[in-house]
Amino acid sequence: MRDDTVNFSAGPAGLPTPALERARDELLDYRGLGASIMELSHRGPEYGAVHEEALGKMRVLLSVPDDFEVLFLQGGATGMFGMLPLNQLHDGGSADYVMTGVWSDKALAAAQKVGQARAVGSGAVDGAQVRVPGRDELDLDPAAKYLHFTSNNTIVGTQFSNYPVGRGVPLVADMSSDILSRPIDFADFGMIYAGAQKNLGPSGVVVVMARRDFLAQGSKNIPTIFQLAAHAEKGSLLHTPPTFSIYLLRNVLDWVEAEGGVLEMERRSRAKAERVYGAVEASDGFYRCRVEPAARSRMNAVFHLPTPELDTRFVAEAAERRLIGLKGHRTVGGIRASLYNAVRLEGVDRLVAFMADFAQSHA
Amino acid sequence: MRDDTVNFSAGPAGLPTPALERARDELLDYRGLGASIMELSHRGPEYGAVHEEALGKMRVLLSVPDDFEVLFLQGGATGMFGMLPLNQLHDGGSADYVMTGVWSDKALAAAQKVGQARAVGSGAVDGAQVRVPGRDELDLDPAAKYLHFTSNNTIVGTQFSNYPVGRGVPLVADMSSDILSRPIDFADFGMIYAGAQKNLGPSGVVVVMARRDFLAQGSKNIPTIFQLAAHAEKGSLLHTPPTFSIYLLRNVLDWVEAEGGVLEMERRSRAKAERVYGAVEASDGFYRCRVEPAARSRMNAVFHLPTPELDTRFVAEAAERRLIGLKGHRTVGGIRASLYNAVRLEGVDRLVAFMADFAQSHA
Repeated sequence: MRDDTVNFSAGPAGLPTPALERARDELLDYRGLGASIMELSHRGPEYGAVHEEALGKMRVLLSVPDDFEVLFLQGGATGMFGMLPLNQLHDGGSADYVMTGVWSDKALAAAQKVGQARAVGSGAVDGAQVRVPGRDELDLDPAAKYLHFTSNNTIVGTQFSNYPVGRGVPLVADMSSDILSRPIDFADFGMIYAGAQKNLGPSGVVVVMARRDFLAQGSKNIPTIFQLAAHAEKGSLLHTPPTFSIYLLRNVLDWVEAEGGVLEMERRSRAKAERVYGAVEASDGFYRCRVEPAARSRMNAVFHLPTPELDTRFVAEAAERRLIGLKGHRTVGGIRASLYNAVRLEGVDRLVAFMADFAQSHA
Repeated sequence: MRDDTVNFSAGPAGLPTPALERARDELLDYRGLGASIMELSHRGPEYGAVHEEALGKMRVLLSVPDDFEVLFLQGGATGMFGMLPLNQLHDGGSADYVMTGVWSDKALAAAQKVGQARAVGSGAVDGAQVRVPGRDELDLDPAAKYLHFTSNNTIVGTQFSNYPVGRGVPLVADMSSDILSRPIDFADFGMIYAGAQKNLGPSGVVVVMARRDFLAQGSKNIPTIFQLAAHAEKGSLLHTPPTFSIYLLRNVLDWVEAEGGVLEMERRSRAKAERVYGAVEASDGFYRCRVEPAARSRMNAVFHLPTPELDTRFVAEAAERRLIGLKGHRTVGGIRASLYNAVRLEGVDRLVAFMADFAQSHA
């Protein structure tokens, strides 16, 4: 990302400039080898070192417990919607799903193609996703293989601040859009997965962190490529991994580490979200956020202007100030400011200043 | 790839230098937008243009018929080993597989996890893959859903020069390692797939070309993400595609087009292979190729020196001349010179000159 531009895209999203500069500088000649890292064998020492470094940094940055595997796979979170039930439900059993938007809907639908899966709670009020259900509202099956939820909902802008712990049932979360923005308490989890294209890197790689015993109960009656345990056994080298995407992910993890790690990302994330929602609240109703305050996402601030015409104008004028990617999702409309790790606080200040100017001239 | 280096890697393999230079030059600022192409929404106009251009160029370069879809997916060829039978065999039926090495073995094993699949012929002689079976040698089932084969076998260095046409049964081929090196007669095919990391681009994207009626008979009783027809319906935007990998693929396709297209790639490929195998034949038995002449791969020339120690020495001395990636696969040993599209004829001449020098000094 160029330094004069602030990219609020929901994903694929902006990446830290140093991670991209490093990629550019060694794109044609990796460490004097005469070839790009993407032109080298995934079984060779050069890529091998990158692969191990990325896996190791992921583990260190999130304090992943020793009984969890870290995997780099393909297919994004949507791929995991399919692989998760293929592994856990193919040979029987049932799973519970918490419904907080489109991604939960897709995850549940995929599971129901494979086996038994139930919706056990929802964040919808009068048909609109404006909150997340508390754990007491969930109709849980204590015999479920897992309880699935989406930790952050990019489209509607809701986020779980407390996980819906499920009475001994392993949690599984799609954390695509808030991973690495706060620490994770792994105690109740069987598995966490996250497409890279928000907080981690480019699209094309999905990170899976899963407890070994949870992986071990996966079906063996499916093609090996879909067996999560098989990927774990081979250290995510069961087949050719997306080497350049993992290399970029490594660069991003290096940047997170250099900036102070996950706690610093969380501190910045709180500060960025407070400023945007603060600007919404301070606008005397010009900007309106439909999400209940307790469930407002720190990653995707979704709000509306008085009319769709003003929404459109806001996006266009913001782009003139090099504030890009602010258009809301087509199903929700309005504005969506995604505040992922690579979005700098100064960038958010520019957005907040623009919001004030725009409200003043159009109120 | 640096111009003084020749990369004979089997994959991920060398890419054309102009394709990488273009990526480097616009890595941080795509067309003045202030962001990298990998930082932009896959639903936005900028990436959308790249996506359509890549799909269109693939179609034009290979003269893909109108009743075929072109798809860009994730998971590589190994992913397709799983998705193909999930689509075609999940709800019943059987498929035939031609066995010509490790990749065929994996493809068959994956299919047998899903439904019925039979091995119907092999290139093995006394346990070693040294040829490809002729169509008359195949024990074909006229009711099979498809007949699968691997068009080029990277590990052992065999290649089909004529496809094993199956009496009305749709052919399905894994063409990962020879796609875009020669024209394809699509008439007998139901589907062709190819991981990008040899002739097309970086790892992380797999190209699928499939006849619409073949796709349409795919199962709907599997998660949507595994339904090839669903990807076709959404123009390979069913979920977030690996945008940067597809962008690089587009750059490579541009290069192929600028160089003269597939016929020119085929002409060069023949010339490169003739020179390497010619050097083997001219070596008075110092270099030995175990593959029958008619089945020798134009993409991966596999040969052995008199001893494993000499193989190792050959690889090391070649690297000193900046001829890299020549080590044979661990299961076969010896030397493997991969002659994919990005390997220039001058590079092959350097290899051939080195082979003569090495033979002279060590014979």
